[in-house]
Amino acid sequence: MAGRTKNPGQSVSRRLLAVLDSFDVAHPALTLTEIARRSGLPVSTARRLITELREWGGLERLDDGRYRIGMRLWTIGTLAPQQRGLRAAALPYMHDLYQATQENIQLTVLDGTSALCIEKISSARAVPTLTQIGGRLPLHATGVGKAILAFSGPELLAEVAAAGLPRMTPNTITRPGVLAAALAEVRATGVAYSFEEMTLGAVSVAAPILRLDGSVRAALGIVAHSRAAVDRLAPAVRTAALGIARSVG
Amino acid sequence: MAGRTKNPGQSVSRRLLAVLDSFDVAHPALTLTEIARRSGLPVSTARRLITELREWGGLERLDDGRYRIGMRLWTIGTLAPQQRGLRAAALPYMHDLYQATQENIQLTVLDGTSALCIEKISSARAVPTLTQIGGRLPLHATGVGKAILAFSGPELLAEVAAAGLPRMTPNTITRPGVLAAALAEVRATGVAYSFEEMTLGAVSVAAPILRLDGSVRAALGIVAHSRAAVDRLAPAVRTAALGIARSVG
Repeated sequence: MAGRTKNPGQSVSRRLLAVLDSFDVAHPALTLTEIARRSGLPVSTARRLITELREWGGLERLDDGRYRIGMRLWTIGTLAPQQRGLRAAALPYMHDLYQATQENIQLTVLDGTSALCIEKISSARAVPTLTQIGGRLPLHATGVGKAILAFSGPELLAEVAAAGLPRMTPNTITRPGVLAAALAEVRATGVAYSFEEMTLGAVSVAAPILRLDGSVRAALGIVAHSRAAVDRLAPAVRTAALGIARSVG
Repeated sequence: MAGRTKNPGQSVSRRLLAVLDSFDVAHPALTLTEIARRSGLPVSTARRLITELREWGGLERLDDGRYRIGMRLWTIGTLAPQQRGLRAAALPYMHDLYQATQENIQLTVLDGTSALCIEKISSARAVPTLTQIGGRLPLHATGVGKAILAFSGPELLAEVAAAGLPRMTPNTITRPGVLAAALAEVRATGVAYSFEEMTLGAVSVAAPILRLDGSVRAALGIVAHSRAAVDRLAPAVRTAALGIARSVG
């Protein structure tokens, strides 16, 4: 077995979960070979685990032979409590913001060292963004990311800075000292901006959703076309974030 | 081992998935003992699998010792394609309906022999319903369920009828012949109603979202307070469902 798999000692459970982990927003459909490679499993093991996951409903086979995550996993995932309560509290405010702006409205939480998008409202008229529900955004380059980072304490900033601040566009803040100064400004004003730091042509403004103890639970953001638009929208985003914080309790 | 578990021969994978299956909308948080009982596993096996799921991020431990589904499963579940495309196509229409009505707007798909709610927009002003995202509704007693059943062919109706038509309220249709006649009416009009058949005080109207080949992909419904309200809303629901069908392609 050794040499055929990257982790020969891992348990069956781990291998099953590794099959699931091979899927992500950038790879929602995979062939058997791709799953085996991405999960570090022998093809024969991957095939057997895929069969068990298919019978259960966790994976589905497409006509072209690739596999995708199935409805069973979606249903179980909806039971995750963090998203459930926060999302229910946030959606009415997000609808209001969307109605008023017709722009991209995003709700994100901290997950590891990135911002995980747990809800998004958009339309064909809004500025195109790559963000999808379940997708991740870098903390240093986005409005929602900076809103989270600014209120998360120095340890997270140190971790993010140590991992490097990748340049997404020519405007991305890539120096830790500059980022720290920007975050101090976010703490002072309660809103965080990204001026084409993540995607050229897309400007965002975001506000943290804080717990009673001041720790950050999530961030709410709008992505729009221009700096003028986000300057105008900043008070609305901040007000909505405060409303969500009160509503989620 | 035999006698300690209901399925002594099941694989490790099956046992891990059985742990996940012990959670549902009615049981979002469970103790170790409850998980063992609901999954038919020995407590020692359940404990070990829970540990592996926790390390992976699929389960989380609450302060009171119970377990809940974790963010990792939520993130993977969002990759399920059925929900993803349909939901993206439906949300703008659902927002419009919500804005116009301030009632409960529901998007459901067929899953087994029930309607699975994959999106819901609601407010404190709307009539209270038990429906949650990820929750199930009986096909015979709800507007969305009847909209799906009417366009799903006779096999599904036979299966649902054979399983029995449980009485949810005094208004529930419990006789297969009456249900079949109601479904013929749904096919003729393109809209399905539930007049307090699921919950007393709640009336719903729904329309199917059909594929090009005429098969049913999903159903869109509104739950409101009165028959007058749903009569007024029926054209809007049907129009929105047609728009979603066109938009999702």
